Amino acid sequence: MLTFESDYTTGCCPEILEALTRTNYEFASGYGADKYCQSAEQKIKEVCKRPDAQVEFICGGTQTNQVVISSLLQRYEGVIAAKTGHISCHEAGAIEYTGHKVFELPQVMGKLRASDIESFVEVFNKADAKEHMVYPGMVYISHPTEYGTLYTLNELKSISDVCHKYNMPLFMDGARLGYGLMSRQTDVKITDIAELCDVFYIGGTKVGALCGEAVVFTHGNRPAHFMTMKKQNGALLAKGRLLGVQFDTLFTDDLYFKIARHAIDMAEKLKAIMEKAGIPFFLESPTNQQFVVLENSRIEKLSQSVGFEKWEIVDEDHTAVRFATSWSTTEEDLTTLQKLLQSN
Amino acid sequence: MLTFESDYTTGCCPEILEALTRTNYEFASGYGADKYCQSAEQKIKEVCKRPDAQVEFICGGTQTNQVVISSLLQRYEGVIAAKTGHISCHEAGAIEYTGHKVFELPQVMGKLRASDIESFVEVFNKADAKEHMVYPGMVYISHPTEYGTLYTLNELKSISDVCHKYNMPLFMDGARLGYGLMSRQTDVKITDIAELCDVFYIGGTKVGALCGEAVVFTHGNRPAHFMTMKKQNGALLAKGRLLGVQFDTLFTDDLYFKIARHAIDMAEKLKAIMEKAGIPFFLESPTNQQFVVLENSRIEKLSQSVGFEKWEIVDEDHTAVRFATSWSTTEEDLTTLQKLLQSN
Amino acid sequence: MLTFESDYTTGCCPEILEALTRTNYEFASGYGADKYCQSAEQKIKEVCKRPDAQVEFICGGTQTNQVVISSLLQRYEGVIAAKTGHISCHEAGAIEYTGHKVFELPQVMGKLRASDIESFVEVFNKADAKEHMVYPGMVYISHPTEYGTLYTLNELKSISDVCHKYNMPLFMDGARLGYGLMSRQTDVKITDIAELCDVFYIGGTKVGALCGEAVVFTHGNRPAHFMTMKKQNGALLAKGRLLGVQFDTLFTDDLYFKIARHAIDMAEKLKAIMEKAGIPFFLESPTNQQFVVLENSRIEKLSQSVGFEKWEIVDEDHTAVRFATSWSTTEEDLTTLQKLLQSN
Amino acid sequence: MLTFESDYTTGCCPEILEALTRTNYEFASGYGADKYCQSAEQKIKEVCKRPDAQVEFICGGTQTNQVVISSLLQRYEGVIAAKTGHISCHEAGAIEYTGHKVFELPQVMGKLRASDIESFVEVFNKADAKEHMVYPGMVYISHPTEYGTLYTLNELKSISDVCHKYNMPLFMDGARLGYGLMSRQTDVKITDIAELCDVFYIGGTKVGALCGEAVVFTHGNRPAHFMTMKKQNGALLAKGRLLGVQFDTLFTDDLYFKIARHAIDMAEKLKAIMEKAGIPFFLESPTNQQFVVLENSRIEKLSQSVGFEKWEIVDEDHTAVRFATSWSTTEEDLTTLQKLLQSN
Repeated sequence: MLTFESDYTTGCCPEILEALTRTNYEFASGYGADKYCQSAEQKIKEVCKRPDAQVEFICGGTQTNQVVISSLLQRYEGVIAAKTGHISCHEAGAIEYTGHKVFELPQVMGKLRASDIESFVEVFNKADAKEHMVYPGMVYISHPTEYGTLYTLNELKSISDVCHKYNMPLFMDGARLGYGLMSRQTDVKITDIAELCDVFYIGGTKVGALCGEAVVFTHGNRPAHFMTMKKQNGALLAKGRLLGVQFDTLFTDDLYFKIARHAIDMAEKLKAIMEKAGIPFFLESPTNQQFVVLENSRIEKLSQSVGFEKWEIVDEDHTAVRFATSWSTTEEDLTTLQKLLQSN
Repeated sequence: MLTFESDYTTGCCPEILEALTRTNYEFASGYGADKYCQSAEQKIKEVCKRPDAQVEFICGGTQTNQVVISSLLQRYEGVIAAKTGHISCHEAGAIEYTGHKVFELPQVMGKLRASDIESFVEVFNKADAKEHMVYPGMVYISHPTEYGTLYTLNELKSISDVCHKYNMPLFMDGARLGYGLMSRQTDVKITDIAELCDVFYIGGTKVGALCGEAVVFTHGNRPAHFMTMKKQNGALLAKGRLLGVQFDTLFTDDLYFKIARHAIDMAEKLKAIMEKAGIPFFLESPTNQQFVVLENSRIEKLSQSVGFEKWEIVDEDHTAVRFATSWSTTEEDLTTLQKLLQSN
Repeated sequence: MLTFESDYTTGCCPEILEALTRTNYEFASGYGADKYCQSAEQKIKEVCKRPDAQVEFICGGTQTNQVVISSLLQRYEGVIAAKTGHISCHEAGAIEYTGHKVFELPQVMGKLRASDIESFVEVFNKADAKEHMVYPGMVYISHPTEYGTLYTLNELKSISDVCHKYNMPLFMDGARLGYGLMSRQTDVKITDIAELCDVFYIGGTKVGALCGEAVVFTHGNRPAHFMTMKKQNGALLAKGRLLGVQFDTLFTDDLYFKIARHAIDMAEKLKAIMEKAGIPFFLESPTNQQFVVLENSRIEKLSQSVGFEKWEIVDEDHTAVRFATSWSTTEEDLTTLQKLLQSN
Repeated sequence: MLTFESDYTTGCCPEILEALTRTNYEFASGYGADKYCQSAEQKIKEVCKRPDAQVEFICGGTQTNQVVISSLLQRYEGVIAAKTGHISCHEAGAIEYTGHKVFELPQVMGKLRASDIESFVEVFNKADAKEHMVYPGMVYISHPTEYGTLYTLNELKSISDVCHKYNMPLFMDGARLGYGLMSRQTDVKITDIAELCDVFYIGGTKVGALCGEAVVFTHGNRPAHFMTMKKQNGALLAKGRLLGVQFDTLFTDDLYFKIARHAIDMAEKLKAIMEKAGIPFFLESPTNQQFVVLENSRIEKLSQSVGFEKWEIVDEDHTAVRFATSWSTTEEDLTTLQKLLQSN
């Protein structure tokens, strides 16, 4: 059975398992104070070219969003996000659970627009009853977005400008950051992100790790007592080495970028296969998630031999579905898929 | 350098790494719906002899306490715990962060007494202003406790009786459960726990896993929408397989019990070495954590060649320290320690 | 200086002050257990024709919304409201502060549509990743709305039907309920509301009281331990008599309805004056809040002799403003206003 | 029937009703921006001799504690209080509901000791695992305490010194402050409190008002956006005048102090009556709450003609009960009580 459901349905890239095995008997301090976390932090700072950055490791994406947002906001503030943002709709209200509102703004291809953010904050600033309202306290974007799309460098700069004009930190959810950086259609580099965002995270879980996300506070702006707040959110791992070793490995010899590049290569081939098969795209995605529209009857047949995910109902007879590639997708998988599409 | 700081300073037992490697390329559904989680659940239910149990896997201990307690309590209820309970003092207020009070009751050797629980609830029940007070809604105990001590079967039965007399679920924090079960001085079996507690967890992180705790709702009493509440707490892992594979391995061929037994064997030898060296015990612990009293000057010298943890100031010149054994402690470690104690 | 800013800028109707004075030296139990609260409850139940109703008194509107919503929702649930609903935008995130999401749905003249609620819930129910989402747990409407508009009986029935089809309680914010009930353009009676809603409140603060809202759980559905949850929200008044005496007075000899009717009569006259003066309405409101569009220069002059509230920017030169009537608005006020409009 | 149950069982002092009546038809801005709130603030600042103080009015005591504490603490901090403090045991967990731990320290006659606070903070500061613990962020005391007792000026100074040594604001719950200030056995003046505390409140509800507490931030230290946080807690009254007029009246011609003095005079007479009747005191209280020990059989008989409150079980046959005086207690009440005690 072929698997294109998602980028988290196989284990991790073998280098990580090797590193875990190699370091297994070594002593390491708990709670993130080990040398692997330190080394990984150092490497990430170098990749970002931000010597003043601070890096924190957290187990999963929702947890990261929850810890970062709730530790950066004042209690009377909320976070701006796209209506389709992960925190808006797919995290079971984890942000609200910590007491904060998510302001849901319109999205275009999964992206926020700088002008919408600015209008929103301006309306707030001009409101007579401002004291009765939640203050916009930060902006959350995902890159790639939940639709696999990417901000251009100009878009990112505009958003960053608006954020800083209004003193709101800009936070980028990079659960799939690798695929964004290695896309063939992007002009955004990790150094741009580290310059334009106040905090972002480098997703591990969905880019070849077993678990883990590396949060980067880009300019010494990690909130005081962040470790205690992590603990308070249940997000402090006793064996912090598990995250340290993984990220140290991912940022050795550009492994993170190589596996993301591989997934992008596979996605481009998958795209070509779909095109050749005359299958229409639901939207144009430059990353490892590809969205196509299939007839429901075809979906039924196809699902017997290949895994993919239903995304959105298009009409009575058609559904948008997602095919995702990952570090473990092979050329053979694609060849098999191509054949399946021909006969199904 | 010898390491006796804790039971989470080395990696995991090799069988787990092998299993992760063996299953790495297999497809597995996300979010805990994979076959390894299912198989691990089945094995745990069998070990507990509770076909009606439900098992959930969560990454770490504080997170588990937070998710379980906040999902079982009504919003007007609090949880009873020993003053020295982990949730009372070493989880950065993770329970209060979810809106609930921790009632801190006196402890004897780290343990709650059934009679104290009963008195507390009785005083509450007789209070005139009950509606102005937090309702006692559940009882939290740790086994082994934070001092390495254990409840006897009778103590556990009494607490369970009190809890059920007053309709309060009993929750056991088993972060180090294996060591409790394999202690040479216990009459409490896992089946007793599964019978007497409403929910407990089998600690993985501190008993040979990389991470992970297995929560057992013992009689079909998992709260509705538990998965959503896990997500809301940031505690739902995308690659749930990481926890499934580990627990499936730990509960294959009694591995969990074997490694815990090994740590206990090592702790007993360590105890004998301490006794022989004339070092007084801070308290009598039947599990893998041993607490002894050392002169401060000796601590300084000893720390240069062996890692252990300062626990509590005893007097100006003495400090209680903790030596912990684990799956990775070797006979050689102990021999070296013995020599170090002779010369330091 | 004339005052049309709002319906809370004068004190209370004189009957309330008389009743407070008359009962001042009487003993009354604290925390809502006094005979005035009981009598007020009884009278409200009679007016609603719901012998199975339960009535609770709370000091203010935001507090009422916070207590009611947070005590009715499960922790994994959120509340559906119009984007312009008071809880969505003018309560400083009081609902999110208790951990719950407000789902903001589109509004038409400040109102939710049954069909939008149904679509929203249907999309949720069909979602594959439902467990990762906040569950829609109740519906909040305001009547009159924040724009002074009213639901028709049919609209209310449809919303009630949708709510009950999906097992969501329907909660009506009646901060200005009196004006809704006494409007000349409504077919909704308080008995309809008591039949169609699961819980609603009869606003006192904005309808002639000093403070206070009467929450009606319409069919014995007050959550268990509601008093404790009130206390937990800081919403339990020691001198509960303050609320009891006021509502007992308001529901004696139909006072509540009479003062609301008076405000409506004044609003209708105000409307006629505006029309005669050729001032365009911003929207058609059948209640005590009237929204008109004025030139900014005129606003400036007019504000020197009459108080009203800026509502929304219409264009560069025009602003929508609100004129509100209340129990204390007099015919003379209107005559003076008319003259002012002629000369300004 | 005589009433000594509490100081909140009659209405308010007549001057307040007169003021409410006198100002009833006047226009006043909403939400605390009216001239009465401003005038009351000014008068309170003068009484406190703190021109840099800021005064906020809130409806009730629990609400005040909730708003003040949750707005002053960082999210990783908790509040220190006596085990018998109101926030510890009689506010339904209102503090924990906002996410913060209440550290319950031992009490002596309802009071915290500076040395206990210092020890507690010192143990925290020396803890190795400090980052895993809740940070002590402020200190809460009540004056008079829940037992009617009072801090001496020296005790208050010591506590204030400890608080400021460790950078923790000192917050005094003055729900019954008037009685403390007018006690015949106190050396603490309101100016001392305003100098030694960072924030305190002047209780209205229990000292002659219908409702309301005046929070004094003593040195310009009101948290930014306090109004929004009040709103977020549901504690912002639309008709803020209700609080403004009351406190303006209470602080005109020393009314607040006069009515408190009256209650103290009545309490002293009550004390003498009890002594003469040979009734033992449960504890020595210098304020308006007097605690005596009665035989249970006598309690039963006495309760038929006089209201008082059961406080604590002393032994099988005896119970401690509370008699409270207030602004409305009369000499006649006491004469009648004396007679009742002679015949019961």
